[in-house]
Order: sequence, then structure tokens, then C-alpha cells
Amino acid sequence: MSGAIEPDLQLAASLFEALGRATRRGHGIVRDSYGPGEQAAHDIMRSAASTIGLEITVDPIGNLSMTLPGKERAAPRIIMGSHLDSVPQGGNYDGAAGVVAGLCVLAAMRRARIVPGCDLCVMAIRAEESAWFDVAYLGSGGAFGLLDPNCLSIERSDNGQSLEATLRERGFDPRPIRERRRLMDPAQIRAYLELHIEQGPTLVAQGLPAAVVSGIRGCKRFRNARCIGEYAHSGAVSRRYRHDAVAATVAFLHHMESVWQQHEEAGEDLVLTAGELYTDPAMHGPSKIAGETRFVLDIRALTDALMEAVAAEARAAAARIADAYRVQFDLGATSDSPPAVMDRRLRSQLLGLLERPFEMASGAGHDAAVFAKVGVPSAMIFVRNENGSHNPHEAMALEDFAVGARALLALLLNFPL
Amino acid sequence: MSGAIEPDLQLAASLFEALGRATRRGHGIVRDSYGPGEQAAHDIMRSAASTIGLEITVDPIGNLSMTLPGKERAAPRIIMGSHLDSVPQGGNYDGAAGVVAGLCVLAAMRRARIVPGCDLCVMAIRAEESAWFDVAYLGSGGAFGLLDPNCLSIERSDNGQSLEATLRERGFDPRPIRERRRLMDPAQIRAYLELHIEQGPTLVAQGLPAAVVSGIRGCKRFRNARCIGEYAHSGAVSRRYRHDAVAATVAFLHHMESVWQQHEEAGEDLVLTAGELYTDPAMHGPSKIAGETRFVLDIRALTDALMEAVAAEARAAAARIADAYRVQFDLGATSDSPPAVMDRRLRSQLLGLLERPFEMASGAGHDAAVFAKVGVPSAMIFVRNENGSHNPHEAMALEDFAVGARALLALLLNFPL
Repeated sequence: MSGAIEPDLQLAASLFEALGRATRRGHGIVRDSYGPGEQAAHDIMRSAASTIGLEITVDPIGNLSMTLPGKERAAPRIIMGSHLDSVPQGGNYDGAAGVVAGLCVLAAMRRARIVPGCDLCVMAIRAEESAWFDVAYLGSGGAFGLLDPNCLSIERSDNGQSLEATLRERGFDPRPIRERRRLMDPAQIRAYLELHIEQGPTLVAQGLPAAVVSGIRGCKRFRNARCIGEYAHSGAVSRRYRHDAVAATVAFLHHMESVWQQHEEAGEDLVLTAGELYTDPAMHGPSKIAGETRFVLDIRALTDALMEAVAAEARAAAARIADAYRVQFDLGATSDSPPAVMDRRLRSQLLGLLERPFEMASGAGHDAAVFAKVGVPSAMIFVRNENGSHNPHEAMALEDFAVGARALLALLLNFPL
Repeated sequence: MSGAIEPDLQLAASLFEALGRATRRGHGIVRDSYGPGEQAAHDIMRSAASTIGLEITVDPIGNLSMTLPGKERAAPRIIMGSHLDSVPQGGNYDGAAGVVAGLCVLAAMRRARIVPGCDLCVMAIRAEESAWFDVAYLGSGGAFGLLDPNCLSIERSDNGQSLEATLRERGFDPRPIRERRRLMDPAQIRAYLELHIEQGPTLVAQGLPAAVVSGIRGCKRFRNARCIGEYAHSGAVSRRYRHDAVAATVAFLHHMESVWQQHEEAGEDLVLTAGELYTDPAMHGPSKIAGETRFVLDIRALTDALMEAVAAEARAAAARIADAYRVQFDLGATSDSPPAVMDRRLRSQLLGLLERPFEMASGAGHDAAVFAKVGVPSAMIFVRNENGSHNPHEAMALEDFAVGARALLALLLNFPL
């Protein structure tokens, strides 16, 4: 490892500045997936890569690869990357930070005339956000032939244009998606490394600039849960005769919070959220016992086993509480997305590179989940960021970004076999 | 007491039948306050009273009094009564049962040629329900000069006609209401006795035909309570950093249920209801931590002191839970209606007249609350009724009605001094 090499932070600063200038629309950032905003970001990165002297390729569905050639060109390469699209009225750093990190690392290596053992590639991945087309990971999923071809008919949420028409309009080729043809061979990728802003408040609260991601939580969601009781006069029915859907739902959700707390105290990574909860506005009333509630219960963890255990506990608790409160729960089916565990060796290597090592789970999904899914050893670095993400107020300090980028550079310079 | 005298149940059956026939509209009963439905019911009662040979008077705001003269005409009289209006698509017994009970009691006494010590009066009270004009107890409140004169401009919910115009159209006189002039002197009323169907399931569950009402619960309602947290990504924010409005509201309402349980175990009469509870449909989402909830907390008890104690406990709990969950509660102001305690002596007398004595609170309001408020010793008998009230499925068996009417008759025949 060479202590003298520093990621090119001046380049990073100018790239973030250029991105913000080109894609700010009013208050927030708009880099619409496969639209002009995302394309503007790709153009900025491509131009920077060209200045650095990287090899540039674009795959049929628009993913941009910017490569510093290694000694053995045929050896599996290392990819650093993230996405360049944003949600509508998003922030400047979600996604872009990972691409910028890769470029300022390769710029530094190039300037230091370091020739790596294998190709080092920065990949600007298309369309990770599901805000525009209602499917996530279009770019990385498409690159590995994982997309359901039906996604080509999904219409863009704002203008109704299908994904297929949008791809064609941009000069890309929908056929690999239709044919489920992969554009990259996982066996030819030695590792995937993604730097990303943290989307929660943990690093701010911990006073830490960066963290290593242990894994990306999967999600098991009771999307359409209901509790059915009986509407009645709030004054005229005493507790023992009620079929009170609100009281039962409150008891259920309160119990689930205690389940969460128990798992947390046992050191397990888990989050539980009921983000939607409502009585029926057409039926409820201030002096009526509620006859129905609807709610969402969102379970996220790093293992399927834990999510299944919590879902089973939810079903058992719902049955018990239904009896106690003389109501019925219909939790409905779950919609599931699997967790992605990050590579153990890369995680431990990265932890050793942080001055104050800290590891945490990612609650949101990232392209790294797709790479991990196809068997590519994958790792992520989180950089401290204020005010959450997916809003115009994302705030990542360049010093914090530098901590993450330095770890990335150091990992590349001393890559574990 | 004369064991031989029985309330005239044949008259009762024919009156319920006539009421149903005259005022059923489709599935349910429509006896619109101060409208043709209520008037039809008044006409039926008046005609029956005339056949029995009772003295008939109508006060300026339409309350109908049907009197069996007593020995001392100048002595304070005893009033039996209830209202004859119904909610839209209501049932046949809510209100009417009390007027019918009075008539079939007086019919029996008249036939037995009993001349009571004082006048016994059956009062068919106008407009108790607030469904048509958004104010309750128009008839009894107006009779005692208690109404806010502004109520005259309240518009009927379905046709928009003001109360004043409606009164005039029916030939009644709005002036006593405008002048807050009372039409009855509480000192001239020895007692008010109201038989009414139970509007909850208690007597059905207890297997009892009738009960004595201990009091009419007052209501202290947090009508516009809110919990303010912060919206955030459900996956990306762990428990300790959340400002989760749903979790906090659930903890609060669950705590309030335990408060209710404790008071219940201490033998206190109390009901607590959160009948409306909702996250903001414009802001919530299945993968978002909720930043806001709105809810109603309805507290009902037989004493102001208990309602105030529970409201104070709600405020204290909200403050504690706000701290623990890093949110803010704004419970807002309460809207209050005071409780009405029924006369102790009349209650104990009535209890002694029931084969299986049972006493319970009324959660819904009744005209008896108005009489109690102005100092008239008041009592109520509840009669078992299936399926709740304010709906077409009210179901009161004539045998159960008979149990209540017998107690009423026996009370009159042996009235406590």
C-alpha cells in the first residue's frame, strides 16, 4: 500500500458541482432513469473518464464502464460503481457518490502511474431507482439478464412512455432484456465495490464519517393487512363486549415492537415498520368503535430465516390477539425481497482500513445486492450524510467522502486474494 | 301496590306496529326531527292518549304531554317520557319505547280507575337525536330554556332548512328558544322516568331483560389529537433514531387501554375509545416511517372527576411517550359533555322491583340527562335490545319491554316520598 496516494478530491468536488448544476430542477435533483437528467450525469462522468484517460464502453442497455487497464487484461476485473439516476426532487449524492469515488480513485492511480494487476472499472449503472419505472435495479439487473422481460412494457410514471420505447429513443437495445441475455459474466468479475451515502441517521448520530456495510436487508412486507371488528357506539359498549379493530391493532403492533426489541437485545439486525395505518374514513367516527383497520407491516433483516421467524411470530400474535379482542386479523400475503450479505473477506479488509471501524446494515436496496445475488464478492462503504436521502437536503461533507474513497483506494492497492 | 294491574301490552304492541307502519322508509325507520316522520309518531301517540282519556297539551315547541290527572292537580307531577324522533334509517324502538311504556302504564291505571296522588304525565319529547339538526336534546333542552338561541339558524342536514323555519312551518313558536324562556318549572316536576332500549350488548350478554341505569356517562373527547414524528426510510433508520409517529401512537393508545383496565378493575365506570386513527394518505407509504398520525380519544364516565383524571393521565402519558419515542403529541382541546347521575332513591326503588336486579351506566345520552341537569330527580330503565340501536336491526322483545313497563307501573303505584 502506498500512503502517498490520495483520491483526487478536487476532481470529486468538481464532479459533484457539475452534477448539481446540470441536474438541479428547482429545489431538488432530477436525474430521471433513462431520461435527460440521468443522461446528463452520464455525459459528465464520461467526459471526466476521458480526461483521466480511461477506456470507455457502453453496454446495450446504457451502462457506462470506465476502465483503467490492468496487467492481465483477461483476468477477472474489479468493478467500482453505483447508479447515476435519482428519485424526483432527490439529492445530489445518492448513487452519484459511488461513481465519483471510483473516478477519483482511478484518477489518482493513473496520475501515480500505477498499473493494477487486473482491470479496474468504474461502472455508472443505469436506473437503480424504481421511482420512474416501477422496478428497481434495471441497469444492474439487465446487465446480468435477471429482469422479467415484461418490464419492457412498464410505463414511466410521469409521461407514460414504456421502458422499451424509452430505451429505443435513447439509442439503446431492449433485446437483451427481452431475451434475458446477460451482458456481463459474473465469473469475470473479481469484486464489486460500491460507495454510497448512508440513507439514515446512524453515522451522524455515532459521529463517524464512514462505515462498512454488513449486508443489505431483505424485506418481507404484509402490504395489505387488515383487522376486522364491529362498528358500535363508543359509549354504549363496554370493554368486554367490544370488537374494537383499533384496540386490537394497537395491541398487535405494540406486541410486534416488543418482538423487535427482543431481537435487538439479542444482537440481531432487524427493523419493523408500520408506516400506514388507518381506520375507514367512510365509516369511522369520533363516537364509534372502529370496525376495521388497514395497515402495513414491513419486516427487514439480513437473513431470510429471521424475517420468516418474525413473520411467523406476527401471524401467531395476530391469532392470539384476535381471540382476546374478538376480532379477525387478515395479514394477507407478504411481498418479499431477499437480503444480500456482503463478502466477509472484503468487509473485514475494509474495516481494517477505517480509523474507527464500524459496521452496519443497509436498510435500503443497492446495486450491490444484484452483484451479490449472482455470486460476485461484493462490498459497500457508507458515507455519513445528513437529512436522509431521496430528498433535496442530502448533505455529504467532502471530508467524509474522502474517508470512504481512501478506504476504497487502499483496498484496491492491497487487494485480498 | 296492586299485583293485579298489568301494563297494557296489547296497546304497546299495536302502537309499535303502527309506528313501524307509518314511519318505515325502505329498510329503516325515518322519524325526522320536527319533520313528517316525527309528526306521524306524535299523531299516533296523541290518538292513543285520546282513546285512553288522557288530557292532551302541546307546548310551543311541539312537545306533547298526555296526562292522567291526579288528586292534587297543583302538586308537582311525575313525567314519564322519551323522544319520538329517530336517526335516518334507524330502528323502531329507540325513543318510542319510553313513550309507549308511559301510555300503556297510564292505560292500565285508567282502566283500573286508579286516581294517582299527583298528575302522571307521558311526555313525547321532540328532536332528541342530533342527526337532523346538529344539536341534541332540542325538545327537552328547549322546554327548560337551556338552548343556545343560535341553534335556531342550524340547518337541517338533508334539506338545509333552518330550525327556525322548520318550527314555523310546523306551526310551532321559536320565540321561547330565542328568549331562553323555560316552558316547564323543574320545581313542579316530582320525577322524570324514562324507559329506553339498551343501545349496547350488555343485557343480551348477561341474559337479563331489563336494568336500572346508574347514570348517563359524560364525555370528554380529544377530538383532534395528533402525533408528529419524522418521515424516513423504513429500512434505513434503526429504532433508536426513529421519530415514528405510528409506534408512539400505538404505545400511547396501548397505555391508555391499560389505564382503562386499571380503573375497571377498581370497579369504576369508564369507557375509552379511539375510533378514528390514521396516517396521512398523501404522505405515508409502505416503506416509510410515518411522520404523523391523527386520532380521536373519547373518554366517558359517570363523574367529571374520573374523566378529568383520565384526561390528565392521557396528557402525562403523551408527554412521557413523546420523550421516549422522540416525537411530539398535540392532544388538543377536549370537547366536553357532563355526566348525569340518576336519582339514588329512584334507582334503589327500581332495583327492588326487578326480579333480577342489575344496574348499568348508559353510554349514550338521553333526555333524562337534561331533566337531571335542571334538578329533577330522574331515573331510567333499560330494556334488552339486540343489534345495537340507530340502525334498522334494533330488536326488542315485547316480553322484555313488559318487564321494564311493569317496574315503571309498580314504581308509580308505590312512589317513594
